Amino acid sequence: MAKTKRIITILLRLLAFGATLSATVVMVTSHDSAEVLNLKFTADYNNSPSFKYYVIAEAIASVYGLVTLFLSSKSLVDRLIVILDVVIAMLLTSSISAALAVAEIGKRGNSHAGWLPICDQVPKFCDHVTGALIAGFAAAILYLVLNLYSLHVVLAPLCPAKP
Amino acid sequence: MAKTKRIITILLRLLAFGATLSATVVMVTSHDSAEVLNLKFTADYNNSPSFKYYVIAEAIASVYGLVTLFLSSKSLVDRLIVILDVVIAMLLTSSISAALAVAEIGKRGNSHAGWLPICDQVPKFCDHVTGALIAGFAAAILYLVLNLYSLHVVLAPLCPAKP
Repeated sequence: MAKTKRIITILLRLLAFGATLSATVVMVTSHDSAEVLNLKFTADYNNSPSFKYYVIAEAIASVYGLVTLFLSSKSLVDRLIVILDVVIAMLLTSSISAALAVAEIGKRGNSHAGWLPICDQVPKFCDHVTGALIAGFAAAILYLVLNLYSLHVVLAPLCPAKP
Repeated sequence: MAKTKRIITILLRLLAFGATLSATVVMVTSHDSAEVLNLKFTADYNNSPSFKYYVIAEAIASVYGLVTLFLSSKSLVDRLIVILDVVIAMLLTSSISAALAVAEIGKRGNSHAGWLPICDQVPKFCDHVTGALIAGFAAAILYLVLNLYSLHVVLAPLCPAKP
């Protein structure tokens, strides 16, 4: 029973690690340029603070995911990981929200503020950002499942309904 | 001892309720208009999906905060509230991140994408958004404290170190 739990947790962590790593790589490699009215125009994740924050958050989650894959299952470490999993889930949620808000303006613009959409000019950049956001979203869902499962596995035996 | 815990929780919930309510009200009342080159230009929270999401999230948190203030302390409800508090904290974090990302573009613009800052034209709108974001941030911090305290109060007696 304990072995099954361990395998499920490792599988979830492996998937989450893959998702955050691809989100980081796809966002970092997003780059496109266009010429509008003889003016060279370059789109890069580095140009937006929100996208930079996204890359940093996904990178932190990747490193954390890799480290937790190799940690042995000890009671004290387990409880710390339950808390850190929640922190990572919050970090991912926050970074996805910020990046999504900027991506939405990039895609549709905002006519009220006079911000034009840029996706027609730099479609490759927008595709990369979309891909990175989907991977990040998958990672956030996986961490949510992991949190619910951790709470079930780690806290349930410690909190019996009838002690 | 149980009474002290109850008072601290109610105090935290009251503060968080006040913060989310003011964030909602300040954001909803944000409105300013300017004339640029004879073109009337109106700034409203309704013009940005991220700001709309922010208002909805803060309003949900306000209603939730009001309801939990009047709930009696029962073991089953308490455990549900511990989970819901985490959900609300995540909702607040996500909405603040999205609104902050858009507000940052409104304040500084993004020269790479050709998006001009709008705060010079509609300073009153920007002041309101800043105020709403600060109130929302305070609410998120309060929910974080509440979560840590709830975990301590609700789970600690259920999970003795030496059973």
